[in-house]
Amino acid sequence: MIPYKKLEHFTQEVFTSLGIPNHVAIIAAENLVRADLRGIDSHGVARLSGFVRLIKSGRINVQAKPNITYETTSTATLDGDSGLGLYVANEAMKIAIQKAEMCGSGWVAVKNSSHFGIAASHAELAVEHDMIGLAMTNASPLVAPAGASEGYLGTNPICFAVPAGKYKPFLLDMATSAAANGKLEIAQRKNVPIPTGWAQTVDGKPTTNAHALKDKGSLLPLGSDTDHGYHKGYGLGAMVDILTGVLSGANFGAWVPPFVQFLDVKQKVGEGIGHFVGAWKIDAFQPASEFKARMDTWIEGIKNLKKNEGIEEVLIPGEPEYRAEEKRLKEGVPVNDKVMQDLENLAKELGLKWDY
Amino acid sequence: MIPYKKLEHFTQEVFTSLGIPNHVAIIAAENLVRADLRGIDSHGVARLSGFVRLIKSGRINVQAKPNITYETTSTATLDGDSGLGLYVANEAMKIAIQKAEMCGSGWVAVKNSSHFGIAASHAELAVEHDMIGLAMTNASPLVAPAGASEGYLGTNPICFAVPAGKYKPFLLDMATSAAANGKLEIAQRKNVPIPTGWAQTVDGKPTTNAHALKDKGSLLPLGSDTDHGYHKGYGLGAMVDILTGVLSGANFGAWVPPFVQFLDVKQKVGEGIGHFVGAWKIDAFQPASEFKARMDTWIEGIKNLKKNEGIEEVLIPGEPEYRAEEKRLKEGVPVNDKVMQDLENLAKELGLKWDY
Repeated sequence: MIPYKKLEHFTQEVFTSLGIPNHVAIIAAENLVRADLRGIDSHGVARLSGFVRLIKSGRINVQAKPNITYETTSTATLDGDSGLGLYVANEAMKIAIQKAEMCGSGWVAVKNSSHFGIAASHAELAVEHDMIGLAMTNASPLVAPAGASEGYLGTNPICFAVPAGKYKPFLLDMATSAAANGKLEIAQRKNVPIPTGWAQTVDGKPTTNAHALKDKGSLLPLGSDTDHGYHKGYGLGAMVDILTGVLSGANFGAWVPPFVQFLDVKQKVGEGIGHFVGAWKIDAFQPASEFKARMDTWIEGIKNLKKNEGIEEVLIPGEPEYRAEEKRLKEGVPVNDKVMQDLENLAKELGLKWDY
Repeated sequence: MIPYKKLEHFTQEVFTSLGIPNHVAIIAAENLVRADLRGIDSHGVARLSGFVRLIKSGRINVQAKPNITYETTSTATLDGDSGLGLYVANEAMKIAIQKAEMCGSGWVAVKNSSHFGIAASHAELAVEHDMIGLAMTNASPLVAPAGASEGYLGTNPICFAVPAGKYKPFLLDMATSAAANGKLEIAQRKNVPIPTGWAQTVDGKPTTNAHALKDKGSLLPLGSDTDHGYHKGYGLGAMVDILTGVLSGANFGAWVPPFVQFLDVKQKVGEGIGHFVGAWKIDAFQPASEFKARMDTWIEGIKNLKKNEGIEEVLIPGEPEYRAEEKRLKEGVPVNDKVMQDLENLAKELGLKWDY
């Protein structure tokens, strides 16, 4: 178990040692390690070495100055200047919040950015301003549209963060695929099959092979098959790609570059990867205090429902992550051997201290 | 086969005969019959007698004057004055479009409304203004949150409409449940079982019984079970309820009144049912002409994907509905016997002519 502050501090040092300004490194480290803290291990320090490779290959600009290229009272398009998505998307959200403060809502489409970590890190910035936050990103094309046998969409997550009164914020942060790639990786490590409905073979056949992606298969959209509405998961992932990629001027569809290596990208339809963030100010619809009391009633309504056999509690979106956070704040973050080795190697490579 | 214009005209006459002003009846009839035209038979004239019952019982105010109760530059809350949702949501969308024209985006939360037909009727108003349209509504609690064995959310649809260049608009209009109630009704009529993953029994057990709802069971969220991510469908349906119900001042969760009879509603947490509509102006992010060319590239990318065996074409969201529309514009709308009987009865009851 490693105290999360140690992970955060080390991550920050990694970034600054590569030439990233301190104020950027602080935000990026907080946002990366928040994933570890919340139990989403696939998106935390496990990805740090990937960021280092991108920076060293010059694909991430350490001196990036995100700049607004297009703007109205309630909207903006932000050029991320090839910066760290972990930072760029936070800046975008701050612009959206300013706009929402002024005119009730604010929306920022971001191009020329990179992987932004967990979407929640950006969406939830809105909550302390009594706003509902939204964050989305596109990603490399691992997910096949309904009826296709090759990937065109990323796992394209959608996140909504909504303040409540007595309770923690409602926090929905979900991939639009049936299962995130991280779940396949867990099955690979355990050497167990995956449920049908997560992935298909290169020929578009159902498969339980956890290595389906490596064998040129693709992930399936939320809904998994025709009978269970996978055209809906496809449609949602498509909508995320349109807002984050098509609308911002970033790459979209098959052209979105993968997180770590950009070798396969022969063609471009835009710049970098794209995000879309925004905020609705609650006071722009009804008094925030009334809204929060209504959210409490809404949450209590869920908690009072009859439960299925074996279910102790019906959870509100965000609760699993908050509970992991509470636990890991006390006990530290479990980091697996492979990631530990990664961090040690990074320390050696960059001349940093890593004393675990 | 009945020419859709006949259905539309009859619907309009039904509404005006009940005291609804002509300009309202025209919009309401267009929006109701659009469902029949697009092949979504469950949401068209099949629901006309339900509206008549609501109007006759005084639950829908025929003289409704929707009015803004709360407003900022980019947002508004609209009180539907207990009017026809088919009309109220259209008015809300027009306000959103005006706001988006002014400041880049516009958002209207609607309370005190009623069933609004297909969400597409409202979202797609934005498209001709070179905007991306969004429409959502809540509905009576048929869908169980993940882990619960009773309904709390409606089938809570989400619709996005996006203009393209050479191609028809992208039009995603989806329930956030695994299957809409209309699909269960079809299975009931055919007397066939439903796939597992659509519904559960009153005890929260999987079922293939098409009559599960009548037996006090509930619908399942998109994703259908734990393995296939039904917490995501639950989260999306919840988000729709929060924006349409909690934020607007309408009823939400278990308190949303059913479409036709209000007998079961003992308690209220708000007024009527709620909608949430909005628009992003494309020119507020990038020139609309460039965006539309990019949408064409995005669509062509989908069309060029490798297809699964037996699949002739990978469809873009909206294409099935546009194809039904093209066919039914030429050939007329097939109306089943039960609905024909309904319409005849309505004609008799209201002293109207119905010559089919």
